[in-house]
Amino acid sequence: MTGQPGYAMTVLVHGSFDDAVSATRQALADQGFGVLTEIDMRATLKAKLDVDIPPQVILGACRPPLAYAALQAEPAIGLLLPCNVVVRATDNDTTLVQALNPDMMVSMTGNPNLVDVAADASARLSAALDSLLPAHQTS
Amino acid sequence: MTGQPGYAMTVLVHGSFDDAVSATRQALADQGFGVLTEIDMRATLKAKLDVDIPPQVILGACRPPLAYAALQAEPAIGLLLPCNVVVRATDNDTTLVQALNPDMMVSMTGNPNLVDVAADASARLSAALDSLLPAHQTS
Repeated sequence: MTGQPGYAMTVLVHGSFDDAVSATRQALADQGFGVLTEIDMRATLKAKLDVDIPPQVILGACRPPLAYAALQAEPAIGLLLPCNVVVRATDNDTTLVQALNPDMMVSMTGNPNLVDVAADASARLSAALDSLLPAHQTS
Repeated sequence: MTGQPGYAMTVLVHGSFDDAVSATRQALADQGFGVLTEIDMRATLKAKLDVDIPPQVILGACRPPLAYAALQAEPAIGLLLPCNVVVRATDNDTTLVQALNPDMMVSMTGNPNLVDVAADASARLSAALDSLLPAHQTS
């Protein structure tokens, strides 16, 4: 894992944006996350505002057992679900893949009953992001 | 506006869940928010885990000018977009409508350049939620 800010877990991957999106979807699936939503930010902002941003998608990742456990612990936690994973191009050869750090669920709610769920989600998202690095190299 | 927790803006509305969802969509549209995503949590958890929860949907609300301004101020802010609005039944006659408090964007990122965007989003979401109350009564 590399990079800031603290609310994000980040990896920098080489290769095309489209390849990074595909690889991220597979990596999430390998960790038990389905992608429930996908927002093409570039297309949305182009259509609505006629502005250009680099390619960026927001994937809404959900592992149902974790979502269910979180809802049992904190009824309003849907406000922080699904787990957002952003894939965004920084140039033609480099793409950032970032996940919202699930520990934020604990800090924002102040609910200690979310600690275990957040830790499980963090471990799985970390593993997913790390798997995108060459030879699964972690840092 | 009523209710806790602090990361949520909450109103309690009377009437059916389906009516509350429709009214929430309209209230968001009236404030310039499109709904980019919708997750039926009850259906998702039933399908994946065969568990039953009360009706609950997570609406992903986006006002493109605000999203664009936020991205300019904080490149990773996609992790906190779109603005989640949760509609969930508490019983047959009462439904909670909650929005993630946009001030969380500021506190989580520590980025003062998001203050104005968050304030704008908060004002609009507050207005949307308040409009769901009888006679637009605020508290």
